[in-house]
Amino acid sequence: MNRRHFSLAFLYGLGSFAIRPFPHEEMLKVNGPRITKNIYGLSEFGKDSRGGVSRVAYSDADRKGREFVLNLMRDAKLDVTIDAAGNLVGRRAGSVPNLSPLLFGSHIDTVPEGGNYDGIVGSLGAIEVAQTLAEHSLVTRHPLEVIIFQNEEGGLIGSRALDGELTEQELDLVSRSGKTIREGIKFLGGDPTKLAQVRRKRGDIAAYLELHIEQGGTLDSEKVDIGIVEGIVGINWWDVTIQGFSNHAGTTPMNQRHDALLAAARFIEAVNRIVTSVAGRQVGTVGRIQALPGAPNVIPGKVVLSLELRDLDAAKIKMLYEQIHREAQQIAKASGTRFEFKEINVNLPAPTDPRVRDVISQAARELGLSTKLMPSGAGHDAQDMARLGPVGMIFIPSVAGISHSPKEFSHPADIANGANVLLHTLLKLDKMDLK
Amino acid sequence: MNRRHFSLAFLYGLGSFAIRPFPHEEMLKVNGPRITKNIYGLSEFGKDSRGGVSRVAYSDADRKGREFVLNLMRDAKLDVTIDAAGNLVGRRAGSVPNLSPLLFGSHIDTVPEGGNYDGIVGSLGAIEVAQTLAEHSLVTRHPLEVIIFQNEEGGLIGSRALDGELTEQELDLVSRSGKTIREGIKFLGGDPTKLAQVRRKRGDIAAYLELHIEQGGTLDSEKVDIGIVEGIVGINWWDVTIQGFSNHAGTTPMNQRHDALLAAARFIEAVNRIVTSVAGRQVGTVGRIQALPGAPNVIPGKVVLSLELRDLDAAKIKMLYEQIHREAQQIAKASGTRFEFKEINVNLPAPTDPRVRDVISQAARELGLSTKLMPSGAGHDAQDMARLGPVGMIFIPSVAGISHSPKEFSHPADIANGANVLLHTLLKLDKMDLK
Repeated sequence: MNRRHFSLAFLYGLGSFAIRPFPHEEMLKVNGPRITKNIYGLSEFGKDSRGGVSRVAYSDADRKGREFVLNLMRDAKLDVTIDAAGNLVGRRAGSVPNLSPLLFGSHIDTVPEGGNYDGIVGSLGAIEVAQTLAEHSLVTRHPLEVIIFQNEEGGLIGSRALDGELTEQELDLVSRSGKTIREGIKFLGGDPTKLAQVRRKRGDIAAYLELHIEQGGTLDSEKVDIGIVEGIVGINWWDVTIQGFSNHAGTTPMNQRHDALLAAARFIEAVNRIVTSVAGRQVGTVGRIQALPGAPNVIPGKVVLSLELRDLDAAKIKMLYEQIHREAQQIAKASGTRFEFKEINVNLPAPTDPRVRDVISQAARELGLSTKLMPSGAGHDAQDMARLGPVGMIFIPSVAGISHSPKEFSHPADIANGANVLLHTLLKLDKMDLK
Repeated sequence: MNRRHFSLAFLYGLGSFAIRPFPHEEMLKVNGPRITKNIYGLSEFGKDSRGGVSRVAYSDADRKGREFVLNLMRDAKLDVTIDAAGNLVGRRAGSVPNLSPLLFGSHIDTVPEGGNYDGIVGSLGAIEVAQTLAEHSLVTRHPLEVIIFQNEEGGLIGSRALDGELTEQELDLVSRSGKTIREGIKFLGGDPTKLAQVRRKRGDIAAYLELHIEQGGTLDSEKVDIGIVEGIVGINWWDVTIQGFSNHAGTTPMNQRHDALLAAARFIEAVNRIVTSVAGRQVGTVGRIQALPGAPNVIPGKVVLSLELRDLDAAKIKMLYEQIHREAQQIAKASGTRFEFKEINVNLPAPTDPRVRDVISQAARELGLSTKLMPSGAGHDAQDMARLGPVGMIFIPSVAGISHSPKEFSHPADIANGANVLLHTLLKLDKMDLK
């Protein structure tokens, strides 16, 4: 009895027998401890002293982490290539000719001082699903592709190459690694001159599934096993400039000031008040602020701050923005300042496919897991895949909702649950025609 | 008839005669156009393209500007030395032995991107007074000292050497020039190892007078000629740290946030509300703010901001601070954040001498000028001189109250008025015993 036989026997209590097609497909389960072991293995690349990881895209740690993952993919009997955009793609043939592939995966790059779960759970969970299928010689109808997208954290670069959103100009932008995106793609083994090769069009994929940690505290606090993502929120980001008049803080009476920071304070309060004044799960954030000239003894003459609004409904974002804009004009009038809004970026909301949601729900129910329908407040590669075909996302709880932090954590049992839901969703979708 | 005779004749219509003691001392007037000419001359050193000047202490521009001023002092028949602290001191003997000197002066260093009037009007006005006395061979009872303090803008360094406030540790602080204060003193020709030589004690000076631009808009808007300074406000400066919890802006619901910047916004609004809730001329400013980590898509977990309160009455500053501190605790409680206040600097209020104020008032009245009693919201070298003896300050209007800016401007007629008030205040004080 070799080690693999033993561990399967140990896990499922089925005794010792040779590996063959699993007799009861609906009883198939992933090897949860193996995912945990692989998470620890990957955590070595870019490891920091606080228990987290800094594995920004195109860094040495990123490249080494990808080699580790590429070997896991090969162990899972996937036929692995690095596509022209630098994504890792592991293929597995299907039994029915001419079907489009079912894609599933995530990313392994992190933010600076990030954690060991964001993207990683979905990547290693996807590989574990492929490994499980391989171990049971289970052949799907559709071809399968496990895809590990490059540079998700720096702007969904790998997935945006697939749907043709990645522009030529963008390739010259400098990423957090210090390399341009073009240099980064080369560094990972891609070829930025051949991006047209990776481009896919609507219908080229049967579906895309992504397992991910929630990154919020809802599942954890409500003790729900699985989040079924309704869609990925739209994100609108503006830079707001408030022009006042800089003057001496000692000699300018209070009633003669045009204090840009005081106007900014009223604005920040208004953003919070307006965003929370209507029911729903929309969020609004002022995350960045700069006051000029920025000395304790000078009244700020200019403030630049960021405004970000997110919701599943683009019309609601528009409505909130209009209210905020209107209130800004009132603040400006009262304080003798001027507000200017500059739109920096718009990501439209990306709904998931209702049929895929139903399948996830059914898979979870059959596994005895509780579920909750919820939006994804964070952006994901799935939002680009939604341009190519039906997508679904499976969330698992993040302890205390902490993410983008060394303290990011999800329990091994939740990770295994998520991977099992991914596995069974995939097997159910494989039997459907989602066109 | 030489040029000087001509200009005097031209200005006062007194015809041509040899210079001799002025027969009617009360009719004596400074040469206003000469001050204006010298202001233009000095403006060459550190000149910028916006019409202002960057002559930060210890820069090459500062050193060259001081040479220009030193020559003007010599032209005014002053016996000029550079003291160990790097101040320019121009002495003129008095007629009565053993009297303490009457000091008057200001500074010529500027803030970065400053103007041509702050400090400069008082410096060149003082030299003009000495020049006028010299031209009329008028000898005072007290010895006179015109003093041009070094590095006023960087923390009243020259005047704080005189009253012994300048510490050994402070000498190692890096100034805006990039040099340490110790290096800067050497650079100007002083000797930082001999600061004890410049130290004076209470009673060592008969009085100190300083002419200065208001730097606020009160005299200009109320069309008053001369401001008689009641005192220099106390300035208390704290750094306030607000600790919240940094988290993902997309995945953290509004009601689960501990947004340090939202708490900071409420604090800034509270500072303004509390400071303006009581009658008086007190001011409160938040001039500097930093939000961390400072990304549009991350809820700020930490904010550091400056709080500055100024008033002539230290008890009022204390009362306002206590109210602000109390309200900060309420904001902290409501938002799940924590406020910490760290006192960075305290300048106690420095009242001017009531007798000196009366003399300024009388001098202005005799010159036909309107006056207004007012606080100085800005710090001045006079506040240190107040530790050594009676001080008085004479303000002239700043157009539109603009200061620390290339747009800083005072009319030549107002500058001449100020210098004449300085001259006559000095002559009147000279006849008094202020001990």
